[in-house]
Amino acid sequence: MIPFESAADKAATCVGKPKGVELEEEKKKGKERMIRFECDYGEGAHPKVLQLLQETNLEQTPGYGCDPWCEKAGQQILEACGAPDADVQFVVGGTQANLMVIASILRPYEGAISASTGHINVHETGAVEATGHKVLALPEKDGKISADQVEKCLLEYENSTTQEHVVKPGIVYISQPTEYGTMYYYNELKAISDVCRAHNVPLFVDGARLAYALAAQDNDISLPDMAKLCDVFYIGGTKVGCLFGEAIVFTDKKYADGFRMVMKQHGGMLAKGRLLGVQFSALFTGGLYEEIGKHADDLAMKVKKALKNKGIPLYYESSTNQQFCILTDEQWDRLNKTYALSDNGPVEGGRLLRICTSWATRAEDVDRLVADINKL
Amino acid sequence: MIPFESAADKAATCVGKPKGVELEEEKKKGKERMIRFECDYGEGAHPKVLQLLQETNLEQTPGYGCDPWCEKAGQQILEACGAPDADVQFVVGGTQANLMVIASILRPYEGAISASTGHINVHETGAVEATGHKVLALPEKDGKISADQVEKCLLEYENSTTQEHVVKPGIVYISQPTEYGTMYYYNELKAISDVCRAHNVPLFVDGARLAYALAAQDNDISLPDMAKLCDVFYIGGTKVGCLFGEAIVFTDKKYADGFRMVMKQHGGMLAKGRLLGVQFSALFTGGLYEEIGKHADDLAMKVKKALKNKGIPLYYESSTNQQFCILTDEQWDRLNKTYALSDNGPVEGGRLLRICTSWATRAEDVDRLVADINKL
Amino acid sequence: MIPFESAADKAATCVGKPKGVELEEEKKKGKERMIRFECDYGEGAHPKVLQLLQETNLEQTPGYGCDPWCEKAGQQILEACGAPDADVQFVVGGTQANLMVIASILRPYEGAISASTGHINVHETGAVEATGHKVLALPEKDGKISADQVEKCLLEYENSTTQEHVVKPGIVYISQPTEYGTMYYYNELKAISDVCRAHNVPLFVDGARLAYALAAQDNDISLPDMAKLCDVFYIGGTKVGCLFGEAIVFTDKKYADGFRMVMKQHGGMLAKGRLLGVQFSALFTGGLYEEIGKHADDLAMKVKKALKNKGIPLYYESSTNQQFCILTDEQWDRLNKTYALSDNGPVEGGRLLRICTSWATRAEDVDRLVADINKL
Amino acid sequence: MIPFESAADKAATCVGKPKGVELEEEKKKGKERMIRFECDYGEGAHPKVLQLLQETNLEQTPGYGCDPWCEKAGQQILEACGAPDADVQFVVGGTQANLMVIASILRPYEGAISASTGHINVHETGAVEATGHKVLALPEKDGKISADQVEKCLLEYENSTTQEHVVKPGIVYISQPTEYGTMYYYNELKAISDVCRAHNVPLFVDGARLAYALAAQDNDISLPDMAKLCDVFYIGGTKVGCLFGEAIVFTDKKYADGFRMVMKQHGGMLAKGRLLGVQFSALFTGGLYEEIGKHADDLAMKVKKALKNKGIPLYYESSTNQQFCILTDEQWDRLNKTYALSDNGPVEGGRLLRICTSWATRAEDVDRLVADINKL
Repeated sequence: MIPFESAADKAATCVGKPKGVELEEEKKKGKERMIRFECDYGEGAHPKVLQLLQETNLEQTPGYGCDPWCEKAGQQILEACGAPDADVQFVVGGTQANLMVIASILRPYEGAISASTGHINVHETGAVEATGHKVLALPEKDGKISADQVEKCLLEYENSTTQEHVVKPGIVYISQPTEYGTMYYYNELKAISDVCRAHNVPLFVDGARLAYALAAQDNDISLPDMAKLCDVFYIGGTKVGCLFGEAIVFTDKKYADGFRMVMKQHGGMLAKGRLLGVQFSALFTGGLYEEIGKHADDLAMKVKKALKNKGIPLYYESSTNQQFCILTDEQWDRLNKTYALSDNGPVEGGRLLRICTSWATRAEDVDRLVADINKL
Repeated sequence: MIPFESAADKAATCVGKPKGVELEEEKKKGKERMIRFECDYGEGAHPKVLQLLQETNLEQTPGYGCDPWCEKAGQQILEACGAPDADVQFVVGGTQANLMVIASILRPYEGAISASTGHINVHETGAVEATGHKVLALPEKDGKISADQVEKCLLEYENSTTQEHVVKPGIVYISQPTEYGTMYYYNELKAISDVCRAHNVPLFVDGARLAYALAAQDNDISLPDMAKLCDVFYIGGTKVGCLFGEAIVFTDKKYADGFRMVMKQHGGMLAKGRLLGVQFSALFTGGLYEEIGKHADDLAMKVKKALKNKGIPLYYESSTNQQFCILTDEQWDRLNKTYALSDNGPVEGGRLLRICTSWATRAEDVDRLVADINKL
Repeated sequence: MIPFESAADKAATCVGKPKGVELEEEKKKGKERMIRFECDYGEGAHPKVLQLLQETNLEQTPGYGCDPWCEKAGQQILEACGAPDADVQFVVGGTQANLMVIASILRPYEGAISASTGHINVHETGAVEATGHKVLALPEKDGKISADQVEKCLLEYENSTTQEHVVKPGIVYISQPTEYGTMYYYNELKAISDVCRAHNVPLFVDGARLAYALAAQDNDISLPDMAKLCDVFYIGGTKVGCLFGEAIVFTDKKYADGFRMVMKQHGGMLAKGRLLGVQFSALFTGGLYEEIGKHADDLAMKVKKALKNKGIPLYYESSTNQQFCILTDEQWDRLNKTYALSDNGPVEGGRLLRICTSWATRAEDVDRLVADINKL
Repeated sequence: MIPFESAADKAATCVGKPKGVELEEEKKKGKERMIRFECDYGEGAHPKVLQLLQETNLEQTPGYGCDPWCEKAGQQILEACGAPDADVQFVVGGTQANLMVIASILRPYEGAISASTGHINVHETGAVEATGHKVLALPEKDGKISADQVEKCLLEYENSTTQEHVVKPGIVYISQPTEYGTMYYYNELKAISDVCRAHNVPLFVDGARLAYALAAQDNDISLPDMAKLCDVFYIGGTKVGCLFGEAIVFTDKKYADGFRMVMKQHGGMLAKGRLLGVQFSALFTGGLYEEIGKHADDLAMKVKKALKNKGIPLYYESSTNQQFCILTDEQWDRLNKTYALSDNGPVEGGRLLRICTSWATRAEDVDRLVADINKL
């Protein structure tokens, strides 16, 4: 194994990458290890997940997700969701999940309602549009949209005298938790779900970080609630202990029609599909999934408390694993020596930084960060 | 870990799968373990690959392939290719690699020349068409197309008086080895490459099983030859010891322009991209990649010899890890009790079966199969 | 009005056209007018069509085909088809009609069965693929495919164990008459229709030149037959007396669902839609549509007879307005001085030339051609 | 010819149209002819345009725009633009022109900057997205965007550290005049053009109603200015005296590369292409194009003056052929009996109505409307 630091020295020209920002900063810092809080996909897999991959490595199974492990993991997930009749499909990543669900469900002239800050609208290089569909962006508040907004948008279409000239809203996409760490509460999600059903438009929830919402102190939506209120949603693994993988749950099976063909067509059907089944099976055995969520949220709350104590402004009120705060340039300069945070550029009062914990975050690293925040 | 057999019992209704053929057959067989020769992606990863994943599991790296491991693996591959200035990008699977390379390089009105049996033409659920491009299928011989065919196709377009009404051939796609285990030899590949360059059309080689061509007894094309003759090609990992992953080599860098955006747009940019770097680094350390190819080919040659000795007709003359033979129904009935082969349906003289070895194939399983073939 | 010849002199560099073949040849000929038999869209509109456009020119109507003229023409067409409950939509051209019908009806992973010589497969610059769908080309005989071929293709899919990896045949496309002037007879069309219905796949007929089939001496399919046997078909106007326009008839209305949105999305919804209604209304008043078909076919039969008498080989046995014959280079050189024919390049025995009549073909021009053929 | 009124009676169920609003209202009115100001495409063609179509009707020309008339019209347009080296291509409609120009120029991961009110963003049923590209909507002011906004958007992308995850702005789309009748002035257009060139991004102007901007009293941009400042723009014919047709001018020829293939692929290449050449030739002969613009603008100014005199609020300050005003329900009820206006729904203070003049608007109809406005 090569040591990380020396490799970083050689890695200045990340192949094809516009600018090797993170790696350049490593180089500047010299020998000291950076402590990375900038995302929740910086490490490999939770040890228990990796162990099961190891144990099952030489088993021989059919490919493409038609294997006993996917079957088993699917059953475990459906039990956890209290939705024995739903369909589960496993895919490698979140952008894949989003584009394939949307492309599979929509008619050619339909689009996806999303918060303007929704991942599909701003962070997937136009993946939904590349499948031919418009993202119908609504103004967000704390990364969320409301049932009223959705209803207004649907009514505007239904009452339009120029329906043939505008994109028909064909699916509603939201993220739980949102891209900013905020969450929908039960009443909010229920209201959106009610609107969707009244207008016969499916509700699709991006749960790339769902575990961190489920484990949040003030969360009031359970997995079975999700299954009841959504038509399609996915349970993210990539950011919650898996090497990769998202489990898409079609609670309304009609929306799964033809989905596996769409998966294959978009390169989203993993040859060794059982790798997804194995990982999710580990995640849904012995409460590991919940444990991971709680671990990250607890550590994030420690950081949040430190920020608040220090009077550092929070940009969003988040009780999940992502904390957005505004640091002055001087504060950022000091932390930046030791910690890799996600820099979202200048905002009023300084720079917007994201601090992110995960299943892999070490308590001692958080303690050190808290101490350094206190010293600012 | 659940035992495979009992899980199979429960797995009869593979979620979303039209018909659970393989699993059903498991059930019929009762307790005995099937020996699977039906594909080369039935197991996990080569132990050395898995070990490096394990050792590096808790390292913290930036995402999306911009990490020291991808950098290192890229360098190792370029060294092996003798192409220090080429670009390498890692993606999860072969269908992804194919559709993204083609979609990235072609103009909207261009198509991809392919053998009619090419994977993109018959086995990817229209993935290339889903990106808007026609596959221009040419008749194949043993899964291959010739330089003459390619030249004729290009000339036909260039000399057409109705160019505006037909699809322009914009890229040539071939597979090495082919979908039938056959190979292009140096003179053949060189001739295709010459035609492509004379007509300014890039040559793209699908190397999902490239190791099995490189290791074949009668192969005369080296990795550096590939780099010299192709404009883009990929080195498959999924079928050669990795959990998943293909390393795309852009020997002509202009064809890499914008490729990473296309990757992200199609959900082909792995969040924990370093997993690809780690695996390919293991593969290109200590000759593992070559070793895997040789292992599978040697075992396939044992099977081939047994088939020939028994007078069982071979459908293609293959010196790589895939052997296609024609079994009578009675022969197939007897083997089918113990061995999972890939059934390609009825042909003249019986059924067309594929026997496939891989990095993971055990010598004792091949010995047993050879003995059983002898007994037919 | 500028005289044609002098304009041609200036028109050598047709904007954006690869090579101005036709115009160059005009130049070489000097002052004599070429007599054009190379296509059936060389003139404007039938005088009666143009007259009605003129008479209605200053009427004020709503746009986009929602006007009294489209309503009236739709009724006239449905009466002629004996299908009072069908839907009619008017679009500008045939490529538009093809791509929009197919894109509107298919699910993303479905493709269109077509003869390999079908217009969508070879002469629309990949228009169907640009909407994301594969054309599943079957070998043709005289430009036609058979019910057996279609059934075999559908069964192969239905019986496939790898359905998820191949394109699903989702629509059957044929042309009546074909691109080569040949026709399906009642029993043939009925058989294809039966197969389609047995497998629940819609039958779509490209009728760009339908009038010339309907009027053929040996035709045994009426417009009401078309309406009964097809799920969608169109009645071409561009090549049958209109300035432009095709009338798409959805005999099974479920396939029209959302079609107008697809029309708008592809730029196929004409702002002054009533122009289409006006033209088709003229065509379906007083038997003009039938009259045009008969006029062209009768003249084509005169040419065919002359060719046969002279012993010039016919490439296809056509009783419609297109005649394909093989001329020696010397014969072609002689005719080429006076007549513009469509040159399909060298074939065994000479060059393949298409002679095409239309609503606008003058009897005296045909008489002159016949005389010149006799002199060959 | 059927009289309009009686046809309207039968036309209540416009085929495929969601709701036959305009036709229903006709029915309610009984026998009196509605005077239509709701759009500028309610009639056929300017008599001079129709006359030339008539005169040239029986000429025989090659198809697809490769004919002397397209050549001649192209030359006339380039002369009017003072851009002898530019390319001209003719297409049938505006949505076609927009989607084809954008799809032809952009790389797969690029998008089109547009005002949020831009036609491509709100009124083309997602036509641009259907070609795979995102519309990057910027907030508008009076239907316009500013050079500063464009520059900020381009800089934001260029300075982004996550370029691979966002859509790259690849073209700037504006409309002259805008969808609300407002115009860019020379300094504004020049500033946008300068930004585009500084960032190497083409500027594309939708000139569906360009004549009405050119003829406006306060316009300070000439056709040659357009040619100098834009990289691609089109001169609309559909709304300016043609039956249909838009002339796309590629002042930077590199952006025309492959465009005719894209045209054919999207069904945008008219078989009888010379119809477009004939019409535009008529338009650019003897100042007809300018005359039409002036006619409509002059009449619109009369209406505007009447509205202002009456104290009826104008929603936009427009000096072109579209006037948006706010009528109280009572005012609208009274006008609605005689005049078809375009109803844009309730706004503060009443309803937003569009009054639109065109080449075909009769002075006496405007006089009557002015009188009726005065009486409100």
